[in-house]
Amino acid sequence: MIEKNQIKAAVAAAAHKVRETNPMAGSITNTVTIDFVANAQLAVGGSAAMVYLPDEGEALVAAGNAVYLNMGTLFPIYEQTIPATAKAAHDAGKAWVLDPVGLGIGSLRTKLLEELKPYKPTIVRGNASEIIALASLWDLLGAEDALDRPRGVDTTDGVDAAREAAVALARYTGGAVVVSGEVDLVTDGTTVVRSHGGSELMSKITGCGCSQGGVLAVYATCADAFTAAVAGTSHYNLAGTRAAAVATAPASFKVTFIDELYRATGEEIAANPMSVEEA
Amino acid sequence: MIEKNQIKAAVAAAAHKVRETNPMAGSITNTVTIDFVANAQLAVGGSAAMVYLPDEGEALVAAGNAVYLNMGTLFPIYEQTIPATAKAAHDAGKAWVLDPVGLGIGSLRTKLLEELKPYKPTIVRGNASEIIALASLWDLLGAEDALDRPRGVDTTDGVDAAREAAVALARYTGGAVVVSGEVDLVTDGTTVVRSHGGSELMSKITGCGCSQGGVLAVYATCADAFTAAVAGTSHYNLAGTRAAAVATAPASFKVTFIDELYRATGEEIAANPMSVEEA
Amino acid sequence: MIEKNQIKAAVAAAAHKVRETNPMAGSITNTVTIDFVANAQLAVGGSAAMVYLPDEGEALVAAGNAVYLNMGTLFPIYEQTIPATAKAAHDAGKAWVLDPVGLGIGSLRTKLLEELKPYKPTIVRGNASEIIALASLWDLLGAEDALDRPRGVDTTDGVDAAREAAVALARYTGGAVVVSGEVDLVTDGTTVVRSHGGSELMSKITGCGCSQGGVLAVYATCADAFTAAVAGTSHYNLAGTRAAAVATAPASFKVTFIDELYRATGEEIAANPMSVEEA
Repeated sequence: MIEKNQIKAAVAAAAHKVRETNPMAGSITNTVTIDFVANAQLAVGGSAAMVYLPDEGEALVAAGNAVYLNMGTLFPIYEQTIPATAKAAHDAGKAWVLDPVGLGIGSLRTKLLEELKPYKPTIVRGNASEIIALASLWDLLGAEDALDRPRGVDTTDGVDAAREAAVALARYTGGAVVVSGEVDLVTDGTTVVRSHGGSELMSKITGCGCSQGGVLAVYATCADAFTAAVAGTSHYNLAGTRAAAVATAPASFKVTFIDELYRATGEEIAANPMSVEEA
Repeated sequence: MIEKNQIKAAVAAAAHKVRETNPMAGSITNTVTIDFVANAQLAVGGSAAMVYLPDEGEALVAAGNAVYLNMGTLFPIYEQTIPATAKAAHDAGKAWVLDPVGLGIGSLRTKLLEELKPYKPTIVRGNASEIIALASLWDLLGAEDALDRPRGVDTTDGVDAAREAAVALARYTGGAVVVSGEVDLVTDGTTVVRSHGGSELMSKITGCGCSQGGVLAVYATCADAFTAAVAGTSHYNLAGTRAAAVATAPASFKVTFIDELYRATGEEIAANPMSVEEA
Repeated sequence: MIEKNQIKAAVAAAAHKVRETNPMAGSITNTVTIDFVANAQLAVGGSAAMVYLPDEGEALVAAGNAVYLNMGTLFPIYEQTIPATAKAAHDAGKAWVLDPVGLGIGSLRTKLLEELKPYKPTIVRGNASEIIALASLWDLLGAEDALDRPRGVDTTDGVDAAREAAVALARYTGGAVVVSGEVDLVTDGTTVVRSHGGSELMSKITGCGCSQGGVLAVYATCADAFTAAVAGTSHYNLAGTRAAAVATAPASFKVTFIDELYRATGEEIAANPMSVEEA
């Protein structure tokens, strides 16, 4: 288990490095929240590029240190683009972040997620239902945990319901897993961090989860999987807490939230409340 | 003809039910305003999911009580997705909302709208030109009304020019039709409601029409077609009026508008000015 | 060389004409910033329509006086849509604006840009790296300038590095070229305008370049290429300067920026600081 002070120091260092180096993290992401993903990546200090075609996904892998794959709105070409990009990242030893949003809607989504298993995502981010469904799809759960219940975009389980699934996923990938909820859970399979803060208004705008995935990829260009996962999660919770202190309705909250992503310093991000426990 | 008090009571009840049940209304919608559609659906109390593939459209029909089909930006796969989704909704007896935006641009749009006729949309929303063009395409106008003039995204006719077309459409579908204009017109083929309010700034931002379509689908999960159509239209006019009271330029207006969608109560929505007449 | 006063008078006239006539400029543009493009076009006084299919691109050419082609996020169908639309504009003698964003990512982008050469874009807009790469791809540079270095979305060269490339491009097309940078450079191959203003925050939000391209197309419906290029560039720099006077973080800056696009008068746009020199 990693000590809290050690985690916080690594988070602050990662945030500083992102701000200093302006790293590019390319994305293949859904069209609903693609603008939010890009603007969040820029606000935290990174840069963004989004593509749809297979060889363009491979080019983004070559051009940066991490890519983000979000399954929100699948196009037919994604049958090629998603596996090609994940494979390119895996083969090049570069980081990639997976958001398995909408698992259970249609057949292509399930097929693609099955194909992605051998490419072991550096960070997986989802709500509890999605994390459980992915661990189940990848046969990582004991018989009693495998609920075999694919879910859509809804969040219906608390993060504790997904603790075992998250740990199992992280142990399989050798990376980190972020479970988004009222309190977020981050694990590398050994240590579990619970990250506090945020706001209920984050569920009243679309794309907090998607854009956090893009931010995790930005952090993954500059830090190990677990540090990147905690940093991106802490950064989001801090900005959510601060935005909710001034905004009372969703659209003004979103504007303030992105502004607060931009304003937060490495020290402030590291100081966002967290608890640490063994997995 | 339905009495005004009866309409207002049904509108307030629909708004309360949406806020209590957080219903999902899936969408196949254009990429220009897709983020606005989702955020408006969330602001009024619903939830959102957007897809592009045929079996995913069918899955959204199965997962909720209403879907929204907006023809703004057609992809090649829509040749399958749009009819498959409309058919699935029709066959399941679920509500679906059609926005025939851009009718007259290119050949696929016209072909798809012709195919959709037998699936009788629960609510059709468009500006006057689009409503006239759709009624004409579906051969629902008398010879003197059939102007045979497909139009693009421009609004060039007042809602009264589309009154006959709207009534004819509603009588054919058995549902409701919303004609957007300076004063909006809503009809079920028997009663005509004119809904007042809104702001000129709504035409200075993109997506008020599209996002209203998504909101109509949210309401259609919880209410009959006519009530849903009046509720979504009243909700939009109220938020537009309120936003225009504080914002004087389009981008700050949009932020305030979404905030006001979120803040409006069922009683306030029902109290938005309307007049009622026989069709 | 055109005199500064003459340029300023033409810019003010173009801005007035846009506000009076609300001209439509259709776009085939990327999904990341498509909402920003449309809202910017509306804010400056134009109207917007976005499509993806080849015959719809041709329909937008027929329906307006200018179209905008932005290569940011290519779909497979763009292999047909982009050349068909550029050819339609060229053959009809209508204006079209090219943003060669992401040149160097993947193979289709390069292939399409090669195909576009004979259709001579009325205005090309890009950062220094993109303008150099395009002039190089089109064999318009002397041997010493042809750096043969395709680039992604990053801005790494100052506008002066692209001065020769911009002049060469403008002489080839017979139109105008805008190089975006800290100070923007606009040329018709004979006169060079340097346009001042803007804000560093413009690089902290996604889409200032893309949306400026859409605005250039709106201006190109009402003015010659050089006037349109200077008008759209001056309008952007003025709004950026003003927004930075009140906003200190990116998301609130974006809202204020679009509001200031809307508020700026023709005289104010013409008065934005510029210097003029021979090419």
